[in-house]
Amino acid sequence: MTSRLEHEIGEQPEVAARLLDRMLPLVGDLRDHLTSRGAEQVLLVARGSSDNAARYAQYLWPARAGVTVTLATPSLTTVYGRQPEVSRQAVVAVSQSGRSPDVVAVVEQARAAGRPTLAVTNDPSSPLAEAAEVVVDLGAGPERSVAATKTYTASLLAVAVLAGVWTDDPSDPDQLHRVPEALGESVTRASGVEEAADLVAGADRGVSVGRGLNLCTAHETALKITELTGALVAPFSPADLMHGPVAAVGPSVPALLVTPGEAATASVLEAVPELRRRGAPVVLLGGPTLDDVHRVGLPSTADLAGWLTPLTSVVLGQLVAWRAAERRGVDVDRPGDLSKVTLTR
Amino acid sequence: MTSRLEHEIGEQPEVAARLLDRMLPLVGDLRDHLTSRGAEQVLLVARGSSDNAARYAQYLWPARAGVTVTLATPSLTTVYGRQPEVSRQAVVAVSQSGRSPDVVAVVEQARAAGRPTLAVTNDPSSPLAEAAEVVVDLGAGPERSVAATKTYTASLLAVAVLAGVWTDDPSDPDQLHRVPEALGESVTRASGVEEAADLVAGADRGVSVGRGLNLCTAHETALKITELTGALVAPFSPADLMHGPVAAVGPSVPALLVTPGEAATASVLEAVPELRRRGAPVVLLGGPTLDDVHRVGLPSTADLAGWLTPLTSVVLGQLVAWRAAERRGVDVDRPGDLSKVTLTR
Repeated sequence: MTSRLEHEIGEQPEVAARLLDRMLPLVGDLRDHLTSRGAEQVLLVARGSSDNAARYAQYLWPARAGVTVTLATPSLTTVYGRQPEVSRQAVVAVSQSGRSPDVVAVVEQARAAGRPTLAVTNDPSSPLAEAAEVVVDLGAGPERSVAATKTYTASLLAVAVLAGVWTDDPSDPDQLHRVPEALGESVTRASGVEEAADLVAGADRGVSVGRGLNLCTAHETALKITELTGALVAPFSPADLMHGPVAAVGPSVPALLVTPGEAATASVLEAVPELRRRGAPVVLLGGPTLDDVHRVGLPSTADLAGWLTPLTSVVLGQLVAWRAAERRGVDVDRPGDLSKVTLTR
Repeated sequence: MTSRLEHEIGEQPEVAARLLDRMLPLVGDLRDHLTSRGAEQVLLVARGSSDNAARYAQYLWPARAGVTVTLATPSLTTVYGRQPEVSRQAVVAVSQSGRSPDVVAVVEQARAAGRPTLAVTNDPSSPLAEAAEVVVDLGAGPERSVAATKTYTASLLAVAVLAGVWTDDPSDPDQLHRVPEALGESVTRASGVEEAADLVAGADRGVSVGRGLNLCTAHETALKITELTGALVAPFSPADLMHGPVAAVGPSVPALLVTPGEAATASVLEAVPELRRRGAPVVLLGGPTLDDVHRVGLPSTADLAGWLTPLTSVVLGQLVAWRAAERRGVDVDRPGDLSKVTLTR
């Protein structure tokens, strides 16, 4: 029987196509809103998988559109009673469930302070959607698997479309329209997934490595493998890994490197010789073919512009995590005795 | 023979005392500098252990002084060629070695753009110190052990003193002057370290949990244990841990919780029942005495104001990491075949 997880991984192309159809015509309105009332910067608020989508925005919006992005620390509000200073900022919250109380609290306070607020959520009737002035509904349909997949790629895509709020590159819509097909090709035609899943399934711990736009992919891949397989995978930038934690890497500790056709990949690949020297099984998610390194690859029909590679790269991480969990005998729809929503005050 | 690591852990009180003597009289000048040229926000730039000190600033300066703090993503500059927009910001860089090329690059560009720049570093002749207009020399003396300890607490203390740049609480100097003695009491009189080290030394993976001001302590404790023992410890906020990664926690996966007398501790403690249900050995660093939970404790002579608890809490993490590494037979001055500086372009 097909698991919900497998089904939801497979839904990603159509979810992306629907979201683009709905969202691209709204970019002008979103621009008017997010740059109103003197807003020239963005405060981003998120949690969990959504926090990883926010990490994409943290690199993409400054790199592509020059806008300053600050990640909110919601506990400032809920623990220390401090309202963030937002007089120059629009507030964008990303939460698939829309039910993280601390994310909602930051948006409520910003709205009360008269700032432009936007919620990106998969539940347009959630408290978060209530709290924000403007809502982007991810429209991914109910996500029944505990591990978020389609809502994650939908959040990434919403972030990619929102980049157009602060820039005006006429080639953007064409590049974005390539995403649904590329996701479909990634889901159905990725190579080397089973061998990578074998490596991961045999280990109790591992590391994932990414940089820049795909640092989010390293984080999300670590999260998927950890929650689905019960092996602990920790995400790092290559510099942070080399600066100490590499001491924990060895023959029983696989390293997954996020290496799509993108500017930051060269510096991720610089970690390979040291990882190999330590005897770690190395898996590249995308990118070049190297000796003694396992590669999970995408067909050229899944190629996207560099700035959009987090969308297809993370599918490789999802596939490896799912297949590794199956190998370990995990019920992938109820892994590790987890329930779906976490409420944090 | 005393290891360099042990020696450097023991130097922390005197390093702190010297730094306070030198730095407190400069707060007025630092205020003039960091609020000059219209600067009303801070861009923080850091890497590795220094990144964890920056994480403290990310919570402390907004919580205590209401200033907006953005963590820089240096690869924006070095990979994507984007200069961060800093027209309203002062730039504060923290780097113990002062030799991370991407941290230096952000400071050079900000200075060229005419913005106020400050380097906090242990090497006043480093490229970073050259690049910044104003330098705070941590004055911790050479750190010969690979694992940073005294430069980390010195960086935290510099961050704590700098909070006074944007606020003016007359009790601050008194509270700060308590730090050297509290560090001394923490180093010499912490209880329960050996038992906690036993739990950690017997595991190949673990998690650390902290929130708010002490999220940095969870990250730094994870880094110390990982680099010193070779066990992989991943840091989480309680919400992020519960939202999935808790699936990886079980009887052979210890959980270290940072729980000093501080406002965020209540929500960290909320994770205890679930961790206990999963059979994980739970270690509290500071805080209350609970059934079935191991506690590493501090004498009341080490008490500090809540906002300064990251200084003493991390000493508990250092001690556990050091003792666990010794138990595992690691040469703590050369753990995991690491070298000291990492250069990242």
